[in-house]
Amino acid sequence: MTSNESEIRTVLDSRARACEAKDVDRLMSLYSPDIVYYDVVPPLQFAGTEAVRRNFVRWFDGYDGPISLETHDLSIVTSGDTAFVHMLHLDSGKRRNGQQASIWVRSTVCLRRSNGSWAITHEHISIPFDPANLQAWLPAEKDQPA
Amino acid sequence: MTSNESEIRTVLDSRARACEAKDVDRLMSLYSPDIVYYDVVPPLQFAGTEAVRRNFVRWFDGYDGPISLETHDLSIVTSGDTAFVHMLHLDSGKRRNGQQASIWVRSTVCLRRSNGSWAITHEHISIPFDPANLQAWLPAEKDQPA
Repeated sequence: MTSNESEIRTVLDSRARACEAKDVDRLMSLYSPDIVYYDVVPPLQFAGTEAVRRNFVRWFDGYDGPISLETHDLSIVTSGDTAFVHMLHLDSGKRRNGQQASIWVRSTVCLRRSNGSWAITHEHISIPFDPANLQAWLPAEKDQPA
Repeated sequence: MTSNESEIRTVLDSRARACEAKDVDRLMSLYSPDIVYYDVVPPLQFAGTEAVRRNFVRWFDGYDGPISLETHDLSIVTSGDTAFVHMLHLDSGKRRNGQQASIWVRSTVCLRRSNGSWAITHEHISIPFDPANLQAWLPAEKDQPA
């Protein structure tokens, strides 16, 4: 593992632990001021840390208690001061309506190094949808065929 | 503009023109054999050029005639042999059912340079969905609030 890759893994681990603990300050410390974020929910994009922070708080508030965020099929590519990562997350927890749910999402995280520190400048989280009925496609298993 | 950035723009332009012309051979020439693709439609991921090619052909076959693919809000970050790009696409055309439709999608394209040539090793295309009814969220304007 290169030194870059090991630094990126530290950022990703911090990101997952901050999400699980719903610690928005720790989580936001990983993002660049010029972050452009494409989330599972509307609008098409969130630009800047204020909009991204509000959206994380909205997500956290949907859960009664902690979130569990498993990472699967992780890939890290890095060279120079740029890195991109893709992975699947299994996002589980007890929703405010009392329902326990687990959802598979796709996650792409893009980072830049500036003054020796990595920051996330772009993130893209999504769920596919079924073109037949325009409904979100929520498989029980990550390798479930379409 | 750096020389890297200018090379990436050439790849992106070729990608958009190949999509519009539904030229699957030209389009596939831009992807790495180890491509991992997250698309608007299921499953969660397409791995390898054979699966990605089949999915492009499925997409092309949904249109009667050419596709129009406008690019908006483009950002390119590159350093060393790695690059990542994000943008919004307005995807328009006449569907097989006779309906003329335009859809906004979010697009993240990640590339590596190997032996002097750039190839796309990861791509993530999605539409957000409305958490209230789990339906795809299809705004008329790209800056439409949630």
